Amino acid sequence: MNFMTKLRKAWASSNSLLCVGLDPDPSKFPGMLRDKPRAILDFNKAIIDATHDLVCAYKPQIAYFASQAAEDQLLETIDYLRSQYPHIPIILDAKRGDIGSTADQYAAEAFARYQADAVTVNPYLGSDSITPFTRYAEKGVVILCRTSNAGAQDLQDLQIDGKPLFLHLASKVTKEWNGNQNCLLVVGATWPEQMRQVRDVVGEMPLLVPGIGAQGGDVQALVKAGKTTEGTGLIISSSRAVLYADSGKHFAQAARQVAKATQDEINLYR
Amino acid sequence: MNFMTKLRKAWASSNSLLCVGLDPDPSKFPGMLRDKPRAILDFNKAIIDATHDLVCAYKPQIAYFASQAAEDQLLETIDYLRSQYPHIPIILDAKRGDIGSTADQYAAEAFARYQADAVTVNPYLGSDSITPFTRYAEKGVVILCRTSNAGAQDLQDLQIDGKPLFLHLASKVTKEWNGNQNCLLVVGATWPEQMRQVRDVVGEMPLLVPGIGAQGGDVQALVKAGKTTEGTGLIISSSRAVLYADSGKHFAQAARQVAKATQDEINLYR
Repeated sequence: MNFMTKLRKAWASSNSLLCVGLDPDPSKFPGMLRDKPRAILDFNKAIIDATHDLVCAYKPQIAYFASQAAEDQLLETIDYLRSQYPHIPIILDAKRGDIGSTADQYAAEAFARYQADAVTVNPYLGSDSITPFTRYAEKGVVILCRTSNAGAQDLQDLQIDGKPLFLHLASKVTKEWNGNQNCLLVVGATWPEQMRQVRDVVGEMPLLVPGIGAQGGDVQALVKAGKTTEGTGLIISSSRAVLYADSGKHFAQAARQVAKATQDEINLYR
Repeated sequence: MNFMTKLRKAWASSNSLLCVGLDPDPSKFPGMLRDKPRAILDFNKAIIDATHDLVCAYKPQIAYFASQAAEDQLLETIDYLRSQYPHIPIILDAKRGDIGSTADQYAAEAFARYQADAVTVNPYLGSDSITPFTRYAEKGVVILCRTSNAGAQDLQDLQIDGKPLFLHLASKVTKEWNGNQNCLLVVGATWPEQMRQVRDVVGEMPLLVPGIGAQGGDVQALVKAGKTTEGTGLIISSSRAVLYADSGKHFAQAARQVAKATQDEINLYR
């Protein structure tokens, strides 16, 4: 199924804008899991089983797998999601970006090897670095716009003709790069005013919003700034606050409680 | 050994500014290699053995390994280089970029898992996405500035106070991000005028220069624009033109001939 359709159905069926980010860090796992040979996969499965009815998407972050030489466990995590919860979109967080011939290889990594429904990409190299992803018309391409970190200001806020770079980009994506209607943008939860500006430029385009939970984004402010007229349009991602809610044997139930509370808080303001 | 020291020694001992990019694409391999179980590793070893005395660096491009699920062959290629040619710097071309906690994982991927001497990174997320790499003071951090592709103009040339974004970045890296003296910049060979502007801003900072060969960069123009007063300062990378000079059984000798001709052409203008 087309990513955008899958996302809209998942928003509706889960009544949730929450996305759980899968950033598996074995040093934070409960002791009984940490030293098992497939600890990352076991951890992810437990988190997924405990939260699947509360989310509109999962977002595995590939860096956490790559640093552990655990590509096989990323693949198995995705296989598990696709077999057990095939209605939930999978966004591979990889932030790839390169010239066209290399971007082709990265698109193959995300869509052929890992079978992700969507992937995050970095726009610094421009349109011909994005086309190798957007030409997969049934997949979602989530382009960094205004990120959640403090350093976002270094480049993304530079003023061009009185308008910050990230708004130029939002406009360019909307008007020029979105021919297949499969683009989304990343806007950090930590910047509600910037999110409002992006929403004004992009119409109903979905936004991926990291930065609640451990990074401190204000849920009320971001939902009011970023939601569409239908009360959707946002994929609000929390990773560490959910995954590591508790470090004991009840970690999965604790993750569910945090996910449920976050889903409810988001729904208060839709 | 510190990356910058290793690079300077390699420039001197090889009398070369040429870097060979390892972009292994099995569909372009000679027939006798293509279907072997370790074709990528065998291909890389043959190229390396045929060119090692002509280069100042090798640059494996991780996307070509990731799309083939060949991380093990990337690791073995690097192990081979480190054991056989320990004096040649290895630049992992990965163009990573993410918020700090995730960038820590990407830095571990490049420097702990793969033991690269340097890695390419994307600056769009700003300073706190770069620090997790630069804090490895003995490693090189190669930051995208003005890339070789046509789409480079979309963001990198936007004018800020009458100066393009890529020059703002070059200045920021030189003055603010280079505390450990381990930053380099990527400037595409296809843009000699932009390279001259970058050289004027960054002093003696080394530049990684992709885009000769298949991408068509003019060697004379780029060497004159980018070299330092010592006649070095450039790591000029060619991938496809060297790797796929011939598709028959003498592919490695053909690669050597192209590499030698490119080394000589570069040296004409130093």
